[in-house]
Amino acid sequence: MVVSEETQPTVEGDAAISKKAAKKAAKAAEKQQKKTEHKAASGQQPTEAPESDCSEGRYGIRKLIQSSGEYCDRVYTDVVDLGVTLDGQDVWVRARLHTSRAKGKQCFAVLRQNSSTVQLLVSVSEERNVSKQMVKFVGSITKESIVDVKGRVVKTSSPVESCSVREVELVAEEVWQVSAARAQLPLQIEDASRPEKNDDPEALKIRVNQDTRLDNRILDLRTPANQAIFRVEAGVCRLFRDILTRKGFVEIHTPKIISAASEGGANVFTVSYFKSSAYLAQSPQLYKQMAIAADFDKVFTVGAVFRAEDSNTHRHLTEFVGLDLEMAFKNHYHEVVDTIADTFTEIFRGLQEQYAREIAVVGQQFRVEPFKFLEPPLRLEFPQAIQMLKEAGVTVGEEDDLSTPDEKLLGRLVKAKYDTDFYILDKYPLAVRPFYTMPDPNNPRVSNSYDMFMRGEEILSGAQRIHDPDFLAQRALHHGIDISKIAAYIESFRLGCPPHAGGGIGLERVVMLYLGLDNIRKTSLFPRDPKRVTP
Amino acid sequence: MVVSEETQPTVEGDAAISKKAAKKAAKAAEKQQKKTEHKAASGQQPTEAPESDCSEGRYGIRKLIQSSGEYCDRVYTDVVDLGVTLDGQDVWVRARLHTSRAKGKQCFAVLRQNSSTVQLLVSVSEERNVSKQMVKFVGSITKESIVDVKGRVVKTSSPVESCSVREVELVAEEVWQVSAARAQLPLQIEDASRPEKNDDPEALKIRVNQDTRLDNRILDLRTPANQAIFRVEAGVCRLFRDILTRKGFVEIHTPKIISAASEGGANVFTVSYFKSSAYLAQSPQLYKQMAIAADFDKVFTVGAVFRAEDSNTHRHLTEFVGLDLEMAFKNHYHEVVDTIADTFTEIFRGLQEQYAREIAVVGQQFRVEPFKFLEPPLRLEFPQAIQMLKEAGVTVGEEDDLSTPDEKLLGRLVKAKYDTDFYILDKYPLAVRPFYTMPDPNNPRVSNSYDMFMRGEEILSGAQRIHDPDFLAQRALHHGIDISKIAAYIESFRLGCPPHAGGGIGLERVVMLYLGLDNIRKTSLFPRDPKRVTP
Repeated sequence: MVVSEETQPTVEGDAAISKKAAKKAAKAAEKQQKKTEHKAASGQQPTEAPESDCSEGRYGIRKLIQSSGEYCDRVYTDVVDLGVTLDGQDVWVRARLHTSRAKGKQCFAVLRQNSSTVQLLVSVSEERNVSKQMVKFVGSITKESIVDVKGRVVKTSSPVESCSVREVELVAEEVWQVSAARAQLPLQIEDASRPEKNDDPEALKIRVNQDTRLDNRILDLRTPANQAIFRVEAGVCRLFRDILTRKGFVEIHTPKIISAASEGGANVFTVSYFKSSAYLAQSPQLYKQMAIAADFDKVFTVGAVFRAEDSNTHRHLTEFVGLDLEMAFKNHYHEVVDTIADTFTEIFRGLQEQYAREIAVVGQQFRVEPFKFLEPPLRLEFPQAIQMLKEAGVTVGEEDDLSTPDEKLLGRLVKAKYDTDFYILDKYPLAVRPFYTMPDPNNPRVSNSYDMFMRGEEILSGAQRIHDPDFLAQRALHHGIDISKIAAYIESFRLGCPPHAGGGIGLERVVMLYLGLDNIRKTSLFPRDPKRVTP
Repeated sequence: MVVSEETQPTVEGDAAISKKAAKKAAKAAEKQQKKTEHKAASGQQPTEAPESDCSEGRYGIRKLIQSSGEYCDRVYTDVVDLGVTLDGQDVWVRARLHTSRAKGKQCFAVLRQNSSTVQLLVSVSEERNVSKQMVKFVGSITKESIVDVKGRVVKTSSPVESCSVREVELVAEEVWQVSAARAQLPLQIEDASRPEKNDDPEALKIRVNQDTRLDNRILDLRTPANQAIFRVEAGVCRLFRDILTRKGFVEIHTPKIISAASEGGANVFTVSYFKSSAYLAQSPQLYKQMAIAADFDKVFTVGAVFRAEDSNTHRHLTEFVGLDLEMAFKNHYHEVVDTIADTFTEIFRGLQEQYAREIAVVGQQFRVEPFKFLEPPLRLEFPQAIQMLKEAGVTVGEEDDLSTPDEKLLGRLVKAKYDTDFYILDKYPLAVRPFYTMPDPNNPRVSNSYDMFMRGEEILSGAQRIHDPDFLAQRALHHGIDISKIAAYIESFRLGCPPHAGGGIGLERVVMLYLGLDNIRKTSLFPRDPKRVTP
């Protein structure tokens, strides 16, 4: 019996895959059957090795690694660790063939492991038992294939500018193909890695468009910038959790399948649930609030959030990762705002200190202005923002929400005036916030709610919630909401609930805006939007 | 604009909530309207305070905490921090009224904050300005209401056995109701907390049944055992991530909405996706494998996993939290098995060291044998297990999977022989594993796959995966799988992929079995099964 793998894997791809592909796969399976039989008979012989080959047994296609126990004592060196201290030593390296160029008796190749690259020289040599057949074989290996290379580490006379390992190169003694990439790749890693910020008019303008990248995400993710982006993303998550855990928060997991969609089911995905229907949670908010009512005091949760919104913009996804928190407070919701503000400051500082290398790698491909922030963060009130916009010639009603262009303009104004890419906008008009938002007791048109912004785009929205059931019902009625649909929500506050506030953060937006990227699809490993559910 | 709160909250409860409830809510809203108006006029007056009351202004219903700025300098002391060092001092405490017993001029109450409790004495006293009206008011506060209490910390002459704070009690000077619980609670915290392991025939046998608990989960979660269980669960997650991060793993987030269900869609939930359909991922496996093919080398992910399986057992949920990992290896999949084994050892050790208090609290309600494990963990091969079962009189075919009763029996046999509650069972028969499982190169009937067990129940399943596309297609054909449906999966290995293995862990099962609990619903905050999607 198995927990999470008792079923066959859920496999991606268009529901209607062409017959051609199916035929191809069946044919390949047949071929493999023959190959396996052949292999079983012939053992591990290189595919091309006439009898006169002095390299016999030193190159070829390595038998499928099935954990047979062969070579189990072989130690591999990581490319990133190659350096002059290893000069003159023989090492085994497993890496991708990034590029190769055969030229007569020599083949120059670059090996890549994650973001690190090293030059490999394969040249005909009696001393090293390298034959011209072996050089030809290496030249024939397709780009992106995985190879096992035994080579001598040799100090180079001048730095290898094109590789991350510059002081040494590898001189090949054995080269085995471990896993072959197909000859025609849908995109070239070099093209997908090309700097997009280059002002040089002579620079190559070859680009890989976004759909090609996303359709072939396995390849696209191999670029140094993508390797770095998703390490930064893992960092944001880790910092968020570690900081809040230190502050006494408890991590919780809230259900994604829920029984009822409020508000008539707008923007909500429906799931068939056995003989009935259910919905995908648009936010963990109610469950966070229930955890507060259940005495967990301070909680956070990291998980998938779903929005059935037909928005095809640079910053909307139909499924994203929510970093959510909720916290009981004693006297004032600013206790919570300060906690969140402090969490962001610590995240930004943590990224600066622990992810400088990754941020620099992203900067090599994309033009990224360093992210600026103040300690403690700037907090403005809504009327101040309106005033700043007014002074810039934009008129916004005092009880209107900000439009996206207004938010962006405001971000530029704030940056110019305060030199920060992060700020908090507090005290939104009551009219533009959901019914459960606590009104300001001193001004009936204002609410105890806030948004937070990075580079002029909203990345968190939050508020003090109404924790009194009667008042909540009154506010719902005021909003014209069918009370019968939310009776369970209202009832949950009749068991005693402390005042509390919280907020929800979109992970992909935080990473996009921290790094200064232009599209949220760049910070989602396998993005989902109204037009894309593959791969 | 908001990220995760731009819509109204998705509110739970039966889709068809009774008209009665709606009417009640509407009526309450009306009442609240009046109350608010009244409050605005009368300020913060206690509800019952005739003119002769010497306690006037020292008790009553506190005005709704709306962050008005009042009392912002008031410092609260946590119940857990009350002790003899504070003897004689006045403190403010915010807590729940756990129990209260008014008796003439005195009221004895217990205040509870999370799992900590302290005795509160409210007694008529001219010196402290405590009137009999105030005592009566405190006696009338409903259980589970939240109160603000100003009291003097007083050393008790003998330890208060019924509270976690034993050396001191609070003598009330002010008592304010902050949030009222309704008078008729659907369950009593005391009943829900009662030890279930009590052998004392005199002990009270009042129990709260599971459906009542789950229907009123907010109350149920307030018991000390539940407060502890979900802190342990957070601990397992944190340890899992921290250990793997230290080992060089990268956290990833995989999509839950996927475009195609393999194997004809058995056990998969269907989602309506705009004008089309999609599915909920039954595991992140393909995406973990794609991350390996995309050069992330070692990855883990923590997230919701969905199974549309109509299993109504103590250990199945339709939605659970998967702790998944996948790792490229160099020579042998045992590199991965050892990594996972070591991760479990570190988790068990971490729980022992960092969660001893929580584990003890759970043990106060449930009979829990301490969890035993070996370092390094025991690893058996499948034929050894068959042999052990045979010796115990159970016959299992060498190529059959183990039934759940056999697994449990095996767990007892292993415990008796090796004194461990955790072990690894390696080398399952090929026939009982999915098509993508790598066969053992030395024995065509065996596979490079493994399960891991806690107290005789399976909590992880994993394997070396086939990373060669042609071989994968051949195995799929052998399993009678429609190749056209998984062509994209097979194709993804034509871009070069290192040998890799991994596994999926069910979080709720790990916590249930570590703590020795009898039902997985006890370790899911808001469990989902075929019959339950609320609250």
